[in-house]
Amino acid sequence: MLTETTSAAVPVNPSRGTLRPLSLSQVSIDSGFWADKQQLNASAIIDHCEYWMEKVGWIGNFDAAVEGRLPADRTGREFSDSDVYKLLEAMAWEIGRTGDSRLDERFRALVARIAPVQEEDGYLNTMFGRPGQEPRYSDLQWGHELYCYGHLLQAAVARGRTVGADDEFVQLARRAADHVCDVFGEGGIESVCGHPEVEMALVEFGRFTGETRYLNQARLFINRRGTGTLGDIELGRSYFQDDTPVRDAEVLRGHAVRAVYLAAGAVDVAVEDDESELLDAVVNQLDRTVARRTYITGGMGAHHEGESFGMDFELPSDRAYSETCAGVGSVMLNHRLLLATGEERYADLIERTLFNVVATSPAADGKAFYYTNTLHQREPGSTPPEDEPSPRASSSLRAPWFEVSCCPTNVARTLATLGAYVASSTPDGLQVHQYAAGTISADIDGGTVAVRVETEYPTDGVIRIVVTETIDSDWELALRIPGWAADGATLQDGDDVRELAPGSATARRAFAVGDELVLTLPVTARWTTPDPRIDALRGQRAVERGPVVLCAESTDVAFTDDVDELRITGELSEQGGEVTVGVHRMVAPEHTWPYGVEDAEIAGETHSIRLIPYSSWANRGPSTMRIWLPLEDDVRA
Amino acid sequence: MLTETTSAAVPVNPSRGTLRPLSLSQVSIDSGFWADKQQLNASAIIDHCEYWMEKVGWIGNFDAAVEGRLPADRTGREFSDSDVYKLLEAMAWEIGRTGDSRLDERFRALVARIAPVQEEDGYLNTMFGRPGQEPRYSDLQWGHELYCYGHLLQAAVARGRTVGADDEFVQLARRAADHVCDVFGEGGIESVCGHPEVEMALVEFGRFTGETRYLNQARLFINRRGTGTLGDIELGRSYFQDDTPVRDAEVLRGHAVRAVYLAAGAVDVAVEDDESELLDAVVNQLDRTVARRTYITGGMGAHHEGESFGMDFELPSDRAYSETCAGVGSVMLNHRLLLATGEERYADLIERTLFNVVATSPAADGKAFYYTNTLHQREPGSTPPEDEPSPRASSSLRAPWFEVSCCPTNVARTLATLGAYVASSTPDGLQVHQYAAGTISADIDGGTVAVRVETEYPTDGVIRIVVTETIDSDWELALRIPGWAADGATLQDGDDVRELAPGSATARRAFAVGDELVLTLPVTARWTTPDPRIDALRGQRAVERGPVVLCAESTDVAFTDDVDELRITGELSEQGGEVTVGVHRMVAPEHTWPYGVEDAEIAGETHSIRLIPYSSWANRGPSTMRIWLPLEDDVRA
Repeated sequence: MLTETTSAAVPVNPSRGTLRPLSLSQVSIDSGFWADKQQLNASAIIDHCEYWMEKVGWIGNFDAAVEGRLPADRTGREFSDSDVYKLLEAMAWEIGRTGDSRLDERFRALVARIAPVQEEDGYLNTMFGRPGQEPRYSDLQWGHELYCYGHLLQAAVARGRTVGADDEFVQLARRAADHVCDVFGEGGIESVCGHPEVEMALVEFGRFTGETRYLNQARLFINRRGTGTLGDIELGRSYFQDDTPVRDAEVLRGHAVRAVYLAAGAVDVAVEDDESELLDAVVNQLDRTVARRTYITGGMGAHHEGESFGMDFELPSDRAYSETCAGVGSVMLNHRLLLATGEERYADLIERTLFNVVATSPAADGKAFYYTNTLHQREPGSTPPEDEPSPRASSSLRAPWFEVSCCPTNVARTLATLGAYVASSTPDGLQVHQYAAGTISADIDGGTVAVRVETEYPTDGVIRIVVTETIDSDWELALRIPGWAADGATLQDGDDVRELAPGSATARRAFAVGDELVLTLPVTARWTTPDPRIDALRGQRAVERGPVVLCAESTDVAFTDDVDELRITGELSEQGGEVTVGVHRMVAPEHTWPYGVEDAEIAGETHSIRLIPYSSWANRGPSTMRIWLPLEDDVRA
Repeated sequence: MLTETTSAAVPVNPSRGTLRPLSLSQVSIDSGFWADKQQLNASAIIDHCEYWMEKVGWIGNFDAAVEGRLPADRTGREFSDSDVYKLLEAMAWEIGRTGDSRLDERFRALVARIAPVQEEDGYLNTMFGRPGQEPRYSDLQWGHELYCYGHLLQAAVARGRTVGADDEFVQLARRAADHVCDVFGEGGIESVCGHPEVEMALVEFGRFTGETRYLNQARLFINRRGTGTLGDIELGRSYFQDDTPVRDAEVLRGHAVRAVYLAAGAVDVAVEDDESELLDAVVNQLDRTVARRTYITGGMGAHHEGESFGMDFELPSDRAYSETCAGVGSVMLNHRLLLATGEERYADLIERTLFNVVATSPAADGKAFYYTNTLHQREPGSTPPEDEPSPRASSSLRAPWFEVSCCPTNVARTLATLGAYVASSTPDGLQVHQYAAGTISADIDGGTVAVRVETEYPTDGVIRIVVTETIDSDWELALRIPGWAADGATLQDGDDVRELAPGSATARRAFAVGDELVLTLPVTARWTTPDPRIDALRGQRAVERGPVVLCAESTDVAFTDDVDELRITGELSEQGGEVTVGVHRMVAPEHTWPYGVEDAEIAGETHSIRLIPYSSWANRGPSTMRIWLPLEDDVRA
């Protein structure tokens, strides 16, 4: 058994803000949907990532560096080091969460292979700087060196906050962080990394170490971004957000992962600097992005080309890129804004994105992943190879690994830190943002308060909060009422039953141990209509159930393999949590030209087909799938 | 004045087929839409292409080669030589068409700069093979060396068929063609070029020279394609059609220009070899492609990623790639199939593609071009720079030049050869496929027949065909009745008036000089409904008028700059050729989340807005534009 988890095991720990984060030791998720995913991470996903990075040689690149076999023996893309660091981050949080000493040994073994690669001045990268390689920092547009440091620092924060600042890996990271400040500080290279990431990592490393130079460096990077220091590329400067200064931009744009990572770093800088101009800029950018450039799943990024956001309301289901990493980054960004502002709408988007993007990526066995998360699969596609990496955007079945494989490790570190999103505290109370069976405790003015959460959410909407530790004076328990729960949410507090509107429901008093609040959220299947400005969704409806987006998968349809033939009647029913929808089959005769002929027909009887959670689709072999289903009056015979 | 145009000035001259092509000297287009475009080509486009290729150094690359300044001074992408050859092809046909001796001097001057670059063994390329450059044929996936030869050979065919086989440039090309056969023939490099093009060029060069080895080499390339000789890439082998042998493929797929060029080459080989298996394969591939993967404009290629075809019915208007070159390639492919089969549906697609893709690319002044041809412009965008090349897929205003600038020269060579698409002959008659005011003559059994075409088509649907030269015996005059003219096409022949169905209308007799046939096509604005399987077009209608696709451009809308606010009422009217449509304005309130709110409304009175030909949009500054307009009942308040 390893050391006790420290009380500071907090992934994001701002020095100010409306809400204070809880540490991973203050929150446990004990059963249900997310407990199962955490268990899957512990038992399969982390192992799988390590196995594959040994197999494809990305860990071996560090050995090759030590043994002088670079560049000849290097494998993987220029950013492959970062995935090793993301694996270390996932391991570190997981070690902190569970005290798994076997995992700790593996962590140390990996670090022992990486450490000798670091150079005297702190530089650490397997891709650049050796004879036969390009020089250090010779390709800031695409080289990803600072991006790799970002993931290194985030892993080090995880390690430092779970086992302590003296850890060898933390010291290694500190040398790297100092190197970055030395080289990219005032008077140094006046540019940024083509892929934002180091900004939020530097701020967090500064929060962890108490060293201000890291925040200063992050601020420099944020301020330089958008001033054109990277030069132009065919995809346009917006690809890496170097088109417009962060404070002047009006919306998230370009490469979606880059955009949300940058925005998260900007929030971190704004919070530490208490700079409302920067914070407001990101808030406004995200507001517009959520209102106009986000999929119903919470997914971001409509274009395969450039893995980028589309224009406002350009949200095609069948070419949804919706990269898993963009979902992870959106969760990180929204978490920071939730802490900064206390507004539950950020927790709403975290919930939506966790259930419908992050949870969608891993297969049921944790051994294959989606990189992109399409909302519409037109053709069943084929099973990816088991023994070699797949192209990242194959959009068919989940693949064991990718040539660019940022997503599996991102899922791993997110699942290891799920507890961070569950609740927060203020001096006078506790706020529950995400509902999962488990325990939450917080240190507030006057002592420690704690609750037990009993629920089968999101299968069921009843959430029972039982006070298990309390203080003598009044304190406030606040519960998020999701935006989707506009009708029918209630809170029972003793004999009092209140109807609730979306936002936050609070109870304030001197709670006694054993006091119970019962929140009931209207978790039943409901139709959802799209904004009429989204061309791709015209004449279609989706079904959601609580925070979960449902879909029709051909595996559940008896009469056709092609879900594009389904036309919904409007009948929706639910029995024992299973949702079915009435459909007709559309038959469109073949023509030589697809315009100007109106003879499609509705054929035969009404069928009732099962809808399943989108996150679980494609676990039963190749299939076709739709989230948005056309209305039958679309067919004008 | 130059020499007489030879009677063999035929761009595509198969040795067998249902129809025989006419030479460019047998067809003249004297006035109207296409005469204006040919005049624009002669007065502006060809000059513009030469100016820009001098400016950006692509012509200068040949000088640099001669002067030993490569690779240091090379500019442009690996395929930039090909654009110089496409310019030469356009010039050659134009010289043949008009006898312009000044243009002939420019042609010779360009050739004089290229010729010294050719090496002893016929190799000719500015990108490979010199000290400091990669070796010849070291990158068949992306190197484009054979692609460049293809365009060289096509230019040489143009030169040879207009001034004769003794021309220096033709001899140069012959050495290059021999080199290709030497290096890639049996026992040589057993692979293909990443970008098909050399296949059809070799066949045509073989037709021109009478030398069978070129056809043999083309056949080898066709047979090797799809056997994986190029290796895999992240975009997948389908990108360059190396996934499936040509005879086994079921649909066009991957990079659209590559796909249609390959198909055209395959038709050429099939025709020369009289091989029905290969011909049928391409016919079937194109049939499915036209029925399921083609835009209403005739445009092909739905993805920006990989410039590629989407899946069946995946045809988003706002991400239509619809590359101009894919339109050009589709015209070339359909022309070959028209000659091979005599089926007018191929001429239908040629007409649609010429009017709505090829004609859309050049600006009204011939000095800017679309590379991609979106069907929906969501934001007005900005004016491209006048002095530097633009990214190819900016999808806003036409740009003077591109970093990848294949399209302007492709437009130039297509406009110079428009006459080739107008008509054809058989031993006993003349077939008119495209309607433009001008003259057509053909040598048939018994002598020469000729007609004069009088029309203002497509502004007006009346087409008067007057016999100007005839023979003593019966012969047949066949007129294409377009697929869109299902209702109301008539043919008046003396007192006889016939109603016509799409396909071909024929008159057969011993015509006398002065005999007149009057074909009337129902050129009036009509609504067009999309196939219900096209998600991107659900609940929308387009307006077409004859072969011309119309669009709504914000420049013509008084009450909003955003055409996405338009909702059509169904009223359509036409006066003096100007088409107007009744619209309401949709007002969608702002929300924080674009799903689940149904409060968009129809605001105010009915407006009548003008629709314009799609090909002329964006000639009046930045604007928003839609071809497909949503029905107002889409808004369910």
